[in-house]
Amino acid sequence: MDYKESKGSYLIRLYKDENLFDALGDFAKETKVTCGTFNGIGALKNCELGFYHLEDKHYDRKLFANEAELLSLVGNLSLLDNKPFLHIHTVLGASDFSTYGGHLFSADVAVTAEIIFRPLDLEIHREPDEKIGLSLLNMCGHGAS
Amino acid sequence: MDYKESKGSYLIRLYKDENLFDALGDFAKETKVTCGTFNGIGALKNCELGFYHLEDKHYDRKLFANEAELLSLVGNLSLLDNKPFLHIHTVLGASDFSTYGGHLFSADVAVTAEIIFRPLDLEIHREPDEKIGLSLLNMCGHGAS
Amino acid sequence: MDYKESKGSYLIRLYKDENLFDALGDFAKETKVTCGTFNGIGALKNCELGFYHLEDKHYDRKLFANEAELLSLVGNLSLLDNKPFLHIHTVLGASDFSTYGGHLFSADVAVTAEIIFRPLDLEIHREPDEKIGLSLLNMCGHGAS
Repeated sequence: MDYKESKGSYLIRLYKDENLFDALGDFAKETKVTCGTFNGIGALKNCELGFYHLEDKHYDRKLFANEAELLSLVGNLSLLDNKPFLHIHTVLGASDFSTYGGHLFSADVAVTAEIIFRPLDLEIHREPDEKIGLSLLNMCGHGAS
Repeated sequence: MDYKESKGSYLIRLYKDENLFDALGDFAKETKVTCGTFNGIGALKNCELGFYHLEDKHYDRKLFANEAELLSLVGNLSLLDNKPFLHIHTVLGASDFSTYGGHLFSADVAVTAEIIFRPLDLEIHREPDEKIGLSLLNMCGHGAS
Repeated sequence: MDYKESKGSYLIRLYKDENLFDALGDFAKETKVTCGTFNGIGALKNCELGFYHLEDKHYDRKLFANEAELLSLVGNLSLLDNKPFLHIHTVLGASDFSTYGGHLFSADVAVTAEIIFRPLDLEIHREPDEKIGLSLLNMCGHGAS
């Protein structure tokens, strides 16, 4: 993972076989940024996707081992238990140009990933929402600190 | 709907069962911003999608009531008849990780929506293009005012 | 193609029947920007999509002539051989609301395209990676200049 800062944004490049979440987590640690948004493209493999079933409050998870074009990575960085937390959704492209996607739990870089990160100067904590069963952005208070 | 401003951008959070267009319309009214771009993720339901048929100048519309992962929301804010107008396209993820999408006419929040809005200090009006049958961004003039 | 600058970003509008890459290439030439990111929506036709097969280092390419909703365009601008180079991935929406996509090699505008470009004040060169078979972002050095 390498990154360059310009105009308050970070262009991040990930390398073949890097774990996407480890690399972006390292980026967050190194820059000490705790809030912002991601957008990017590239090619991934070993993508574990999730679909959240609200009625029984659980994620279905499925591993897609094949290499896929990363057609769209959209996500954000916030704090969960005072640690950086990545929330990423993705659309992937298969070799027949069909697409699939979901909430991204894990992925490795197949070829490259080219991601822009735009920091926000906010401290936003995720806090458990018991009715929904997920930790969601707390926009109102000072969070868990 | 809650939002926080930082560095000239707005992090917007929508809540379960909110109407996406009503909430983003309220955001535009409260902030008095009239131009900018959206990008976000979350989970939606009751999504009315459109596909524009240029040859007969009409949208096919279809309602997808099921909860879906919001894999990508990309859109913009401009003025139509001097009022804020949202133009949003979306890719949705189904429980089997297949994807579908289109021009978004309406949607409710199923779980949450996490959207970044970046204002532009422009006054861009949509004006009817009779050959195309849609109101498109007028980049040249002073618009309808 | 028309564009307006605000707050250091460019709102770009493309017109029916324009070639997407020609128009965005003209934009890069006119503004003399050499690095930044794209995000946008609209409707395209004559989309040539690619899927990269790493094992034999070649792109499968396929032309999709039909008009499609442009659900997500994500990409970036860098330098290849000291000339502006566009790297764009896209998710397209068909008339039945199914989606498809890939690396975008070529496309014409079917109706309109509404794209935000955010410049970075960086000089990033793409350089050949022989193991991968593609020219990738060189984040470390001064590039090919």
